[in-house]
Amino acid sequence: MKPIGLAVVGAGYWGPNLVRTAQATPALRLEWLCDLDEDRARAVLGPYTTVQATSSYQRVLDDPRVGAVAIATPAATHFDLVRAALEAGKHVLVEKPLTPSAAESAKLVELAARSGLVLMCDHTYCYTPAVRKIRELIRGGEIGDVQFVDSVRINLGLVQPDVDVLWDLAPHDLSILDHVLPDGVGVEAVAARGSDPIDAGRLCVAHLTAELTTGVMAHIHVNWLSPTKIRTTVIGGSRRTIVWDDLNPVQRLAVYDRGVDLAPAGSLGPDERREALISYRVGDVLVPALPEREALREVMAELAAAITEGRPAVTDGRSGLRVVAQLEAATRSVSTGGALVPVQDVIGEKIIGENVTEENA
Amino acid sequence: MKPIGLAVVGAGYWGPNLVRTAQATPALRLEWLCDLDEDRARAVLGPYTTVQATSSYQRVLDDPRVGAVAIATPAATHFDLVRAALEAGKHVLVEKPLTPSAAESAKLVELAARSGLVLMCDHTYCYTPAVRKIRELIRGGEIGDVQFVDSVRINLGLVQPDVDVLWDLAPHDLSILDHVLPDGVGVEAVAARGSDPIDAGRLCVAHLTAELTTGVMAHIHVNWLSPTKIRTTVIGGSRRTIVWDDLNPVQRLAVYDRGVDLAPAGSLGPDERREALISYRVGDVLVPALPEREALREVMAELAAAITEGRPAVTDGRSGLRVVAQLEAATRSVSTGGALVPVQDVIGEKIIGENVTEENA
Amino acid sequence: MKPIGLAVVGAGYWGPNLVRTAQATPALRLEWLCDLDEDRARAVLGPYTTVQATSSYQRVLDDPRVGAVAIATPAATHFDLVRAALEAGKHVLVEKPLTPSAAESAKLVELAARSGLVLMCDHTYCYTPAVRKIRELIRGGEIGDVQFVDSVRINLGLVQPDVDVLWDLAPHDLSILDHVLPDGVGVEAVAARGSDPIDAGRLCVAHLTAELTTGVMAHIHVNWLSPTKIRTTVIGGSRRTIVWDDLNPVQRLAVYDRGVDLAPAGSLGPDERREALISYRVGDVLVPALPEREALREVMAELAAAITEGRPAVTDGRSGLRVVAQLEAATRSVSTGGALVPVQDVIGEKIIGENVTEENA
Amino acid sequence: MKPIGLAVVGAGYWGPNLVRTAQATPALRLEWLCDLDEDRARAVLGPYTTVQATSSYQRVLDDPRVGAVAIATPAATHFDLVRAALEAGKHVLVEKPLTPSAAESAKLVELAARSGLVLMCDHTYCYTPAVRKIRELIRGGEIGDVQFVDSVRINLGLVQPDVDVLWDLAPHDLSILDHVLPDGVGVEAVAARGSDPIDAGRLCVAHLTAELTTGVMAHIHVNWLSPTKIRTTVIGGSRRTIVWDDLNPVQRLAVYDRGVDLAPAGSLGPDERREALISYRVGDVLVPALPEREALREVMAELAAAITEGRPAVTDGRSGLRVVAQLEAATRSVSTGGALVPVQDVIGEKIIGENVTEENA
Repeated sequence: MKPIGLAVVGAGYWGPNLVRTAQATPALRLEWLCDLDEDRARAVLGPYTTVQATSSYQRVLDDPRVGAVAIATPAATHFDLVRAALEAGKHVLVEKPLTPSAAESAKLVELAARSGLVLMCDHTYCYTPAVRKIRELIRGGEIGDVQFVDSVRINLGLVQPDVDVLWDLAPHDLSILDHVLPDGVGVEAVAARGSDPIDAGRLCVAHLTAELTTGVMAHIHVNWLSPTKIRTTVIGGSRRTIVWDDLNPVQRLAVYDRGVDLAPAGSLGPDERREALISYRVGDVLVPALPEREALREVMAELAAAITEGRPAVTDGRSGLRVVAQLEAATRSVSTGGALVPVQDVIGEKIIGENVTEENA
Repeated sequence: MKPIGLAVVGAGYWGPNLVRTAQATPALRLEWLCDLDEDRARAVLGPYTTVQATSSYQRVLDDPRVGAVAIATPAATHFDLVRAALEAGKHVLVEKPLTPSAAESAKLVELAARSGLVLMCDHTYCYTPAVRKIRELIRGGEIGDVQFVDSVRINLGLVQPDVDVLWDLAPHDLSILDHVLPDGVGVEAVAARGSDPIDAGRLCVAHLTAELTTGVMAHIHVNWLSPTKIRTTVIGGSRRTIVWDDLNPVQRLAVYDRGVDLAPAGSLGPDERREALISYRVGDVLVPALPEREALREVMAELAAAITEGRPAVTDGRSGLRVVAQLEAATRSVSTGGALVPVQDVIGEKIIGENVTEENA
Repeated sequence: MKPIGLAVVGAGYWGPNLVRTAQATPALRLEWLCDLDEDRARAVLGPYTTVQATSSYQRVLDDPRVGAVAIATPAATHFDLVRAALEAGKHVLVEKPLTPSAAESAKLVELAARSGLVLMCDHTYCYTPAVRKIRELIRGGEIGDVQFVDSVRINLGLVQPDVDVLWDLAPHDLSILDHVLPDGVGVEAVAARGSDPIDAGRLCVAHLTAELTTGVMAHIHVNWLSPTKIRTTVIGGSRRTIVWDDLNPVQRLAVYDRGVDLAPAGSLGPDERREALISYRVGDVLVPALPEREALREVMAELAAAITEGRPAVTDGRSGLRVVAQLEAATRSVSTGGALVPVQDVIGEKIIGENVTEENA
Repeated sequence: MKPIGLAVVGAGYWGPNLVRTAQATPALRLEWLCDLDEDRARAVLGPYTTVQATSSYQRVLDDPRVGAVAIATPAATHFDLVRAALEAGKHVLVEKPLTPSAAESAKLVELAARSGLVLMCDHTYCYTPAVRKIRELIRGGEIGDVQFVDSVRINLGLVQPDVDVLWDLAPHDLSILDHVLPDGVGVEAVAARGSDPIDAGRLCVAHLTAELTTGVMAHIHVNWLSPTKIRTTVIGGSRRTIVWDDLNPVQRLAVYDRGVDLAPAGSLGPDERREALISYRVGDVLVPALPEREALREVMAELAAAITEGRPAVTDGRSGLRVVAQLEAATRSVSTGGALVPVQDVIGEKIIGENVTEENA
């Protein structure tokens, strides 16, 4: 089959990775790297390439060989660039966040649906072997009911010029959550607090609490100022608990048969009952073998597959929209002193589980 | 000098540690172990002891050889036991929390002050070599201004019958914070959220945000349901950042010369200015050598020293009161959906820095 | 049943641990702590004890209440002290090494056998939950054939006045090996090299290679000069590999389904055959739950049980003798430039598997 | 300045890395990728390249644009390929080991010297920021005299078809040692033992002891069968000790001010003297900040610089020869049961310190 012609837009921090992995994907044919600074695009391509550099986005959209564009520019430019691409009949892969506004994101989702084009968000983590396994464990029932989620993503990070730490880092955690939770379960409301202790003009440290539709509390801690790098997510379940330490290559994922159990209530009084029925599981830990695969290559393969098969990508525009709506709710919460903000207030409708919304679409 | 006669009250989880360390403290003379269950007291003392067991607290208080009591009973009993001891003219060491209520705690503080007796809280962590070093680093100015605090204390913990996870675990973090912050700096307000996903009848997971008088945000995560044990505190400063990993014997404390700096503003516009002036420090890490000392032995030594020298203990009743007031504010916050609760609302007066309040006393 | 009267001899580094655990063992009754320095013995017992201190070993041996002695004195004194105890009709628990000489150790083993008394070596590690599990895994066939053993025990250790690093640390590894290997498998020959780079007058760093009767090579690295503490043993098997990291409380033992497999040879030529038949297993890792038990309490319980049941202790004098013979072979090897020294050359007979020798006894 | 034309030879495991980094080196111009299997070469270059693939080594050597070749083929082919390149007047970068024989390696060194061509070994680790820092610390006197070296490089590794584990992995450790030791200090003799427990036809586990000219013992453990990956080197010094854990990105290098000191002897008797004069340093640990640089890019830059400046590369043919001679001594030692084999016996002359031999050249 003929490969799909691709243009990468944006030669900044992430663009070079798209360029590299697109070139390693047989189902894609990289035609262009486009950046306002054409020299930068050329430098990214290097002196040995047959790929063309350009500073003209229009030229890319006019090229009939180009079937899809992959956009890795600042978030503020996403709405215009994605819309133009969809209007030009191109499929789109776009970096997170989809756009900085739920309302605009919803427009893009609608436009793609109307045009029958693939609109895919590069929620890269959803394509890692670890997250795939977590999704499988949760949806396969192996961990039981999710009881709590705790995610820490801290780092000495680049203070971004255009987004705060919530919009920079929390999309990872929120998109993962969106991906691994069972059908029909999602984030219903969000509360967040943050601070800017270095006077950077935007939040550098933030704590986000997401209330799931099941009543479960998920907590996300993002921080640009930590001298140590931590990327750990704990998903507590009624049967097992998952600990994902993404920086531990030896043991990225561990499934603990450890926890507190409460037997179903009998005929005792409330307090005695609880005492009597609490028990502790201290079983084995299983570290599942994970394949070694680069997530971004899987993103590229999924982009090509979704286009070819005429179906939504696994991390489609709707998932991007859900994440943006949650982030917008978080920002509102911060500005109102940490109050719980229903996601519905942002998006005007209930968008919880991925499959549920797909049905409704 | 004649050792001070001591009675330990409570032969449950913590009491045996008090018994052991009291026996290893030359300045103390352990006379009694008192527990409602005298057999349990006898079992803790073992078959080779010359120390007496009793189930009668009155007998302990009537014993003129007893100069001080160390109370390790459930929190709900603290008020009565401490009051009785103070009224009997005994100095008191009491487990955290001082009592379950700020109002009652304040009464005990006042009673001790009036009676000229030592009322000391067993904030054990404040006596560890790590916390002593942290206090020295912060107060000596080596880390600069505190910019953020993040503390994680999670574990597969015992679901306590009488207290929730906030009152069980957060006293450690709050008492440490109280101890290491500079004079005049303290917790001004508290917000907290939590959940009880196993239907245990009390919070098992909680996130507490403390707003310091300097505007800095401190976050504390406590959790009884985590299959892995984590006890890590990060204290970010404008000059250095401290990472304390209490479960890493090789490297309990590390001082990172890593961080984000913002040079003082010049004449540029607000946005450009920020861009231009942000810089990243990626310097060395120093792991200071710490002495090997058991914190609880230091607690015992401090109890004896405070009594002998007629001075408040380092972790005196006031520090216990401050911690209780913060916990009570946290509980109020949880019940009002996570709103920020000023500590002053709980205690009726401003009680921030330890030395400040001592002056006012 | 009446507890067995016990005397602990030696109030130095290890003696206090014997005192503490003996007091916590219902089947024992601690009567004496004996040390040449009676004040030291008194200090170890502390001011609250009913146990007697003495500097007279004879007085201990003359005491009819004393059924057993536990000896924790310098190795050079073991032979005389153990012999005297056995001759006085007392059962004996003795610290490793049994004695500094295989010939002397053999005499003690023979004397104990003749007298019908228990002679037990305090090979403490054999009583840890981790080593018990390793023994179970190996002997139960779960890891297949042992293919290699690698043990690292390094530390900033006390430079001992009376023994070198081989005799100080390697007894741990050799006694563990002796304990966990299948019946009939043991150490046949030993080679060792070492160095004394600080001019301490004895080896401070040593590498010991033990050749098992199966032809397998086991390597032990002991070092007093390492600034970091490592206690890790890897036991590679044809089906699974065990990694024991004794300093990792979270994951002390891990069983890896990872390894290199070689299918049975077919009809190909030698080189092609090998290429074709090598395959790599990259399966899951299992971290078995281990009970929390103090090994030394198990030692005490085993001492009492062996005496009561009139049977050899699990780590009996013969196991102590095998370890001493291996150490003596290692010392010979060091002095002859690292040559392989058969253990039989030291002991004059083949003493490999524990059960085999027990049969012969 | 015009970049130097380069051909990479070998498109197997390592070749693609040479291709990638050569393309990122401005001072080089990649002209060819040569492999017996031209399709494989083409696949490595990918569909977007302007670099030529060929299966003809002669064509590469005949190309006047080619100033240098980088050889990443099996070790057995190195001698012929390097000789042909040198005879064709090309500079050479060659993978380790230089050749499988010290005699042949010496011939290549001599040939390069006679021809005035650069013969460089790709001892990649010597170009890592960590090893550069170690070299600086040792040669700058900061750690004092080297007292012991312990290096562990174990892994579930590919069982190589052409070399055993010693020749596969130990070149890394030996080349690092060669690089960081002070001028005039080197490996004088080698002893090794190994085993092949999976019947792979070659050693899969090996322990190598190197005796330095200072009398110091260095130990290297290499293992293809370990389920866990460890790459740790400890270099103990009289003033400080370096711990290099290459798999710990957070703390790759740590300098410990911990150790055992022995004060200079006074007038006491031998034993008392030692007791009295031993002391323990338990000081701070320093984790130096290291730049983030890819070692292989530094290799490429050094190749270009050595050619341009007409000087030997930092890891020149002589260093490659020294490593090969040590490996050959190790192989002889294994076949003679672990005896100490002087490197001089292999190479016929004393080749210890790198600068010393360069002077003599």
